[in-house]
Amino acid sequence: MEVKFERLALIGIGLIGSSIARAARRSGIVGEIAIQSRRAETVETARRLALGDAYTTDPAEAVRGADLVIVCVPVGACEDVARAIGPALAEGALVSDVGSVKASIIRQMQPHLPAHVHFVPAHPVAGTEHSGPEAGFAELFRNRWCILTPAPEADRAAVARLRAFWEAFGAYVEEMPAEHHDMVLAITSHVPHLIAYNIVGTAAHLEEVTQSEVMKFAAGGFRDFTRIAASDPTMWRDVFLNNREAVLEMLARFNEDLTALQRAIRWGDGDTLFELFARTRAIRRGIIEAGQEVEAPDFGRGQLAADPHKA
Amino acid sequence: MEVKFERLALIGIGLIGSSIARAARRSGIVGEIAIQSRRAETVETARRLALGDAYTTDPAEAVRGADLVIVCVPVGACEDVARAIGPALAEGALVSDVGSVKASIIRQMQPHLPAHVHFVPAHPVAGTEHSGPEAGFAELFRNRWCILTPAPEADRAAVARLRAFWEAFGAYVEEMPAEHHDMVLAITSHVPHLIAYNIVGTAAHLEEVTQSEVMKFAAGGFRDFTRIAASDPTMWRDVFLNNREAVLEMLARFNEDLTALQRAIRWGDGDTLFELFARTRAIRRGIIEAGQEVEAPDFGRGQLAADPHKA
Repeated sequence: MEVKFERLALIGIGLIGSSIARAARRSGIVGEIAIQSRRAETVETARRLALGDAYTTDPAEAVRGADLVIVCVPVGACEDVARAIGPALAEGALVSDVGSVKASIIRQMQPHLPAHVHFVPAHPVAGTEHSGPEAGFAELFRNRWCILTPAPEADRAAVARLRAFWEAFGAYVEEMPAEHHDMVLAITSHVPHLIAYNIVGTAAHLEEVTQSEVMKFAAGGFRDFTRIAASDPTMWRDVFLNNREAVLEMLARFNEDLTALQRAIRWGDGDTLFELFARTRAIRRGIIEAGQEVEAPDFGRGQLAADPHKA
Repeated sequence: MEVKFERLALIGIGLIGSSIARAARRSGIVGEIAIQSRRAETVETARRLALGDAYTTDPAEAVRGADLVIVCVPVGACEDVARAIGPALAEGALVSDVGSVKASIIRQMQPHLPAHVHFVPAHPVAGTEHSGPEAGFAELFRNRWCILTPAPEADRAAVARLRAFWEAFGAYVEEMPAEHHDMVLAITSHVPHLIAYNIVGTAAHLEEVTQSEVMKFAAGGFRDFTRIAASDPTMWRDVFLNNREAVLEMLARFNEDLTALQRAIRWGDGDTLFELFARTRAIRRGIIEAGQEVEAPDFGRGQLAADPHKA
């Protein structure tokens, strides 16, 4: 592939940053890669993994001379990063991010970026429950969506270049306003994470049921929730603090609907339950057909199952 | 393996019944297998799949001469089944079931069973989101738990024989009172299913976010919930109607905890969020260590991912 960016600076090198580094190297779309992490230990891990060409704990140093800068830090750290890199950004540099909320990141970063750069916020909708530079892999973005939320006045050439960058990793790209993104993600990602964290917390604190029982009988459904409830705590704290309005709105809808189900159970209204349960099957079918989920039953777990430690 | 039961009768031949038929045949623990389904079409499917030795739509005919009878129908159909098979059960037969609730099944079935049989309720905590005789497979119960809830006065030899039956399929067996089972499963299975069905329903009915958006961006977390929200609607309607007290109790706990999180988001209390999110990782670790979950990130989906229809 043709080199489209001479120097990519990655600010933050966790699951997402390190996956970008790997995918960028493999695709050949960037010349060199500068890697920054706040922690010296993480920088050393990145170096050991040979994720880039230059390594530093200083964000300003990392972005110097870069024509593409991608900020890959928790949402709550974006303002500090923007303040640190602003004065060092090259003329015409394309600045982007990977945050799970967009309006807040724009509010945090925009004021600190010089007029001579192009800011195009982005969110690759991909991840795993693991975190850190060792958890990344080049295939993470393949067949996943990356949402761009450029301002209406954004430079179209810059948007097109960022689109090509993500497409080089096998991602699909869509554009939408930041506020709409935050609403869509509140229901498809943020509230699901919140209720997963919540049910795992509830189960851990019952007097009637021991933790050992919760773990042994988790195959009844509970274990599915523990995967996303094992996601990075800092990242998710920041998501909820920075997408408050949309999350609270979607949570209110969820609660209304749950109250209706609770009522149906209390009054023995089987028809209401059946009607919902029959409808929801079709949604999964649609997700499988959209190429966003594996078709194998039980996520294909049966095909991977290792011998258990108990056997 | 030594034949431990001369004739196994399976009443109902869906995901669980057909998995038992396959596992029983493979293990050699039963002589012959009689299969019953209410619907002639399902009986024909079972025959085509060669799941047993005798096939009928008549439950009484199926259990005649059987020394082991396992009722594998939705919880709400158990009383009718017990009434139908009661008079035809052989002297000394072991009668069991696979229902996801236990106290209600005991209340439904016990009055219709003759004194000359041994009734030992059971619940294999295993399944997939698929249903019907074609969805079953012999390995479904391997390394999963099967919970027996015999009455205190139950015949210990009968309990031991049923334990050996499930262990022959690679299952682990535990005994507990029916009421405790219903409480444990309410939190590890029933409430997780309810909130999964609920979030999928909520997402399907938003004005602000289209169904197409929900499907495209499902990899943000939502898709995990669609798996269990694709489970059999009749089975799950019956579970909620028949474990009402425990489900409502656990749902109340879930709601209390969720309200606290909602409050933390509204007031920007990041510490409360972080503290919960950091704790829940350990629970998943425990489930993996208990052999009840695969260790691969993202359920190992990446290792199975097919080419999407979109590509």
